[in-house]
Amino acid sequence: MSGNTFGKLFQVTTYGESHGKALGCIIDGCPPQLEISTDDIQFELNRRKPGQSDVTTQRKEDDVVEILSGVFEGKTLGTPISLIIFNQDQRSKDYSNIKDVFRPNHADITYQAKYGHRDYRGGGRSSARETAMRVAAGAIAKKYLNLKGIHVDGYVSQIGSISADEIDVSNAKSNKYFFADESKLEDLDIMFAELIEEGNSVGAKLGVRVTNCPIGLGEPVFDKFDADLAKAIMSINAVKSVSIGNTHNMLDLKGSEVRDEMTTAGFKSNNAGGILGGITNGDLIELEFIIKPTSSIKSKGQTINADGEEVEVEVTGRHDPCVGIRAVPIAEAMVNLVVMDHLLRNEAQCGMIDQASPFKK
Amino acid sequence: MSGNTFGKLFQVTTYGESHGKALGCIIDGCPPQLEISTDDIQFELNRRKPGQSDVTTQRKEDDVVEILSGVFEGKTLGTPISLIIFNQDQRSKDYSNIKDVFRPNHADITYQAKYGHRDYRGGGRSSARETAMRVAAGAIAKKYLNLKGIHVDGYVSQIGSISADEIDVSNAKSNKYFFADESKLEDLDIMFAELIEEGNSVGAKLGVRVTNCPIGLGEPVFDKFDADLAKAIMSINAVKSVSIGNTHNMLDLKGSEVRDEMTTAGFKSNNAGGILGGITNGDLIELEFIIKPTSSIKSKGQTINADGEEVEVEVTGRHDPCVGIRAVPIAEAMVNLVVMDHLLRNEAQCGMIDQASPFKK
Amino acid sequence: MSGNTFGKLFQVTTYGESHGKALGCIIDGCPPQLEISTDDIQFELNRRKPGQSDVTTQRKEDDVVEILSGVFEGKTLGTPISLIIFNQDQRSKDYSNIKDVFRPNHADITYQAKYGHRDYRGGGRSSARETAMRVAAGAIAKKYLNLKGIHVDGYVSQIGSISADEIDVSNAKSNKYFFADESKLEDLDIMFAELIEEGNSVGAKLGVRVTNCPIGLGEPVFDKFDADLAKAIMSINAVKSVSIGNTHNMLDLKGSEVRDEMTTAGFKSNNAGGILGGITNGDLIELEFIIKPTSSIKSKGQTINADGEEVEVEVTGRHDPCVGIRAVPIAEAMVNLVVMDHLLRNEAQCGMIDQASPFKK
Amino acid sequence: MSGNTFGKLFQVTTYGESHGKALGCIIDGCPPQLEISTDDIQFELNRRKPGQSDVTTQRKEDDVVEILSGVFEGKTLGTPISLIIFNQDQRSKDYSNIKDVFRPNHADITYQAKYGHRDYRGGGRSSARETAMRVAAGAIAKKYLNLKGIHVDGYVSQIGSISADEIDVSNAKSNKYFFADESKLEDLDIMFAELIEEGNSVGAKLGVRVTNCPIGLGEPVFDKFDADLAKAIMSINAVKSVSIGNTHNMLDLKGSEVRDEMTTAGFKSNNAGGILGGITNGDLIELEFIIKPTSSIKSKGQTINADGEEVEVEVTGRHDPCVGIRAVPIAEAMVNLVVMDHLLRNEAQCGMIDQASPFKK
Repeated sequence: MSGNTFGKLFQVTTYGESHGKALGCIIDGCPPQLEISTDDIQFELNRRKPGQSDVTTQRKEDDVVEILSGVFEGKTLGTPISLIIFNQDQRSKDYSNIKDVFRPNHADITYQAKYGHRDYRGGGRSSARETAMRVAAGAIAKKYLNLKGIHVDGYVSQIGSISADEIDVSNAKSNKYFFADESKLEDLDIMFAELIEEGNSVGAKLGVRVTNCPIGLGEPVFDKFDADLAKAIMSINAVKSVSIGNTHNMLDLKGSEVRDEMTTAGFKSNNAGGILGGITNGDLIELEFIIKPTSSIKSKGQTINADGEEVEVEVTGRHDPCVGIRAVPIAEAMVNLVVMDHLLRNEAQCGMIDQASPFKK
Repeated sequence: MSGNTFGKLFQVTTYGESHGKALGCIIDGCPPQLEISTDDIQFELNRRKPGQSDVTTQRKEDDVVEILSGVFEGKTLGTPISLIIFNQDQRSKDYSNIKDVFRPNHADITYQAKYGHRDYRGGGRSSARETAMRVAAGAIAKKYLNLKGIHVDGYVSQIGSISADEIDVSNAKSNKYFFADESKLEDLDIMFAELIEEGNSVGAKLGVRVTNCPIGLGEPVFDKFDADLAKAIMSINAVKSVSIGNTHNMLDLKGSEVRDEMTTAGFKSNNAGGILGGITNGDLIELEFIIKPTSSIKSKGQTINADGEEVEVEVTGRHDPCVGIRAVPIAEAMVNLVVMDHLLRNEAQCGMIDQASPFKK
Repeated sequence: MSGNTFGKLFQVTTYGESHGKALGCIIDGCPPQLEISTDDIQFELNRRKPGQSDVTTQRKEDDVVEILSGVFEGKTLGTPISLIIFNQDQRSKDYSNIKDVFRPNHADITYQAKYGHRDYRGGGRSSARETAMRVAAGAIAKKYLNLKGIHVDGYVSQIGSISADEIDVSNAKSNKYFFADESKLEDLDIMFAELIEEGNSVGAKLGVRVTNCPIGLGEPVFDKFDADLAKAIMSINAVKSVSIGNTHNMLDLKGSEVRDEMTTAGFKSNNAGGILGGITNGDLIELEFIIKPTSSIKSKGQTINADGEEVEVEVTGRHDPCVGIRAVPIAEAMVNLVVMDHLLRNEAQCGMIDQASPFKK
Repeated sequence: MSGNTFGKLFQVTTYGESHGKALGCIIDGCPPQLEISTDDIQFELNRRKPGQSDVTTQRKEDDVVEILSGVFEGKTLGTPISLIIFNQDQRSKDYSNIKDVFRPNHADITYQAKYGHRDYRGGGRSSARETAMRVAAGAIAKKYLNLKGIHVDGYVSQIGSISADEIDVSNAKSNKYFFADESKLEDLDIMFAELIEEGNSVGAKLGVRVTNCPIGLGEPVFDKFDADLAKAIMSINAVKSVSIGNTHNMLDLKGSEVRDEMTTAGFKSNNAGGILGGITNGDLIELEFIIKPTSSIKSKGQTINADGEEVEVEVTGRHDPCVGIRAVPIAEAMVNLVVMDHLLRNEAQCGMIDQASPFKK
């Protein structure tokens, strides 16, 4: 109820502060007999981890995940799966400069106001480090979905003002920016060099696609598939906007132009982004989202402290010039969790009826 | 679990098909001793109701709400509040033209695929008529929040290509377009005349603001205040995009430009839209969303029928040239529900501690 | 969250005060395509209704149930099913004698203390009248389960000090006491005549059996099948005790005597009551429960009023000498709801694997 | 949803198999600023732990609990609290004798049927070892409740046929049987010596009391305080029966004898066990429950194996002659969790109104 659980049937509950002893999660509701290993999970964690290139923060997070329960002889038991990553780097760094100061654009001030007590070390629970467990849990959903032929792929389509001319999702897997248009890599290198020099940051636009998603997932009227996607994505740190399907020119076009007409072969277009009335229509699911510029930057900022006095704060250390880059595996994980959860929800209510696509495919 | 419930502590569960006997809802968790009357609810329903002007559908929905339980001697009992609107217009119109045909851009095909059985009359459960009960339930939350000085106001900022130059929320209350810039009313009149003539439709952009929202609402890390807002808004029929705070030029600006620095008087800017780390920061909450063009339009569309054959479908009757207009009271209702729910959630966990804003206001 | 919802996947939310406008419920999560009619529901309501014989209260409850949504052309849609019973007898009787007085053994005092405002007419929400909607909702679950060959049967095994020598569940369907041993009917007639004469009441012991329940239902470790049964039964008005399986001589026997050994044909005994480790084992499910004597009796009782003054209260009108009798259809309904909910829960997580009984049946 | 979570606002989710790497839990929803240390938790764990006397199993469980998150500088943060106990004794003992055999009175057969895959080592998830985390989580609730003056005390009132003549709760804290009547200790010593000699087991009857519980806790109509207590207790391994208040002679007494009349000083009796209409009435809360004889006993039992063949099984090792003894701290923990959860639920809906007892105390 305090918001640390995601999903209703495939339920992920996470815990952990950025600089506490450990991060972890419990996954409850995973079907039994699914083959899963730490390798499956570690692979996804490695994709997310910072310090892998010169364009992400150099904090060393040699996160090694362990499975503590729920898997026996290599297969899930149907009992809760507990995953844990111990924080290796807990040395008592000096936090005196931010202990009683609220960093601008951070959750310091809101955590303090809400709880009256906060773990100021590295942002505590509000740190993006929390998303490691989303990725870990998402890896288990991914394993299950891939076996059913369902695939979730994310990409970056814009960083600052540099935008992809065309989206090639496979590109996103092979460059350090997860960027969907490799013709822009050189421009990005130049921009990042400047940002690092300047100690500043930019925002980004990203996308996620689900291929081969079955028709019929999603629960009207509140837990619509798109509504749950929107929540999932908006719950990622720094995300400020989520769109489903084509919204690029939605305000310039008329109803007659954007309705997706149908033939026996399927939809003639996909402005809907694969969802109609909150239920998947069997077409490609497409979403996009915008991430704000990294909050932690080099230049001093004006703020107040816990005593209500005006002070300046300087966040030391190196940080991501664009936190959006690392959001690709996180967003993929969240979408995997949404698809998995709705797959089980659909199974519960409609599993005993014959659900068939009306298209002749 | 089948998605017809919204909220965790202030829980609204709705029911009803567009042309069934009745629409209704149960509101569970409302605090006791709140004065509430049918007038409070009817007022909001009337704002939403179609057929009020020449720019919305002429379907007569003389919706009269009744309170069936939960209110005694004018005050809430703390027991479930049941609201009902009987459908007056249930005559068995001839639906043979759409009974077995999937209207493009509608949920006909996905409901059929998911459930194998659907109420084809007026879209059944997928009809926007369902939102009447959101507005009714939202009216009760609104009553409570207004007593605490919290106000939620919606507006339309763009219809098709006509966009407000400036946002004046009070304007939205006094014109039939709920439009935030009255200097554009004449342009809108011309556009709507053309759309009606043509039998076509356009999309719209809307916004909602929450003034005087207390600091500290929202539950990290999944049930963030903005994540729940995104879900609430995306669950409204035809919504395709949701944004929190300033996302207009987020990709053109650097971190140093968009972080909201603080003084003792408060935040110097509000790019965050009143939410930091998923928790309200006491500033104005601002969100925007995009609604696609009305799906039901005059011109024939290509589609398939239940037998998988290609057919053309024509949706008769008059429809909204822009369904976005009527979404203002619906979106306000959903935001009222989110604020109310998080107020109670905050009360549950943090009600016994002193939650104070660090600003000297 | 305020406790008016039962079930997690087959969710029933009820509303209504005893003397309000209506009682009703929403059933969310019912599988689509189930044939259901008001007759199915009315049949169960009629079994519960008072005033049917000289041994239950003479209050006339000619409850007529209506289906408002979720059923179309005789079959469930998968959308929420709304059921309603309008209260016919709302005339403003004189309640001045109990308006500000807390009747002993009733919830008057606790509702007043919790909510500070209550509907004093006939107990308001705390009235056993609320259980009508449990019976109505249970009838839908029953319809579904019966199609799968699963049957739930209740009976009364003891009223006051008169106890059944043998349990014959079929007897319970043919006498006005729902009593499992018809050899005791004459004794019961005499006792009831005396109780009515005296204006007093007695308690009762009841049982419910589930035949043909599939193996594998129930969720360890908290939502065990027996734990959910215990909650379901204990949530019925006036129930004070719930037992699963054989507890009659559990304290006199040793482990070697009560463990249910197995052969290829099945269990050699059923002390477990059909549940092991919280999961159904395929054997007959057996539970028992105790209901306290009816609270509303003729004789004056000592109490206090809303001003904290000592007063005497006399509850007028005729009442059940043993409220336990009418609890049979209510308990059956609750058990049907538990089985139905766990059937869907099991389907969600384990629906895709092969669940087989290890017995050679 | 898969049943490993208890509570709605003070939510405890547990994980872990008996012989897996670790047991643990996440507590979400704990109010911030509560002082908590591992000592608070370890104290309760030590009370539950086996091997402390000659009358409980000699398995060494030197359980050392660690707090992994949610507590900072000695006080709760309001973020999820993660507790963990690493299993020290994971050596691969030879389980070949029970690997494919279903022990009578155990959950082996039902886990196998439900999930098709199980951890056979020591019962896996179905082991009573799982309750360690209930005790750990309960310790945090207890800390909070004790600060408010609310106390939960359990005791054993009967073991096999030896029954307490009088209940003195303080006795239960000072003898190894947790027995409420110390005059019976010698008799118990003799019985246990015989049971150990014989390798057999007996059942037990236990009770729990809550003193100083505020009036107004509990949610009608399904989440009644007593209904949630019943579920909480019935969810403990081996519990077969739960009673609230006086049910000893409920069937011998009439309504006029068991209704708890009131004076300005309070209730004249407490047959209700402190709960009316599902809501606490401010009086002492009293419940009782029965635990079946330990399933694991020395003597061979007849059963079947995974291939459906009849076999005999012998469970080696030493086991508790009466598992009921160790249930005292577990039951206390569950009751603490129920009170805590309902305290927060009451706070959420009614926290802003004045809830007062009508008695002049």
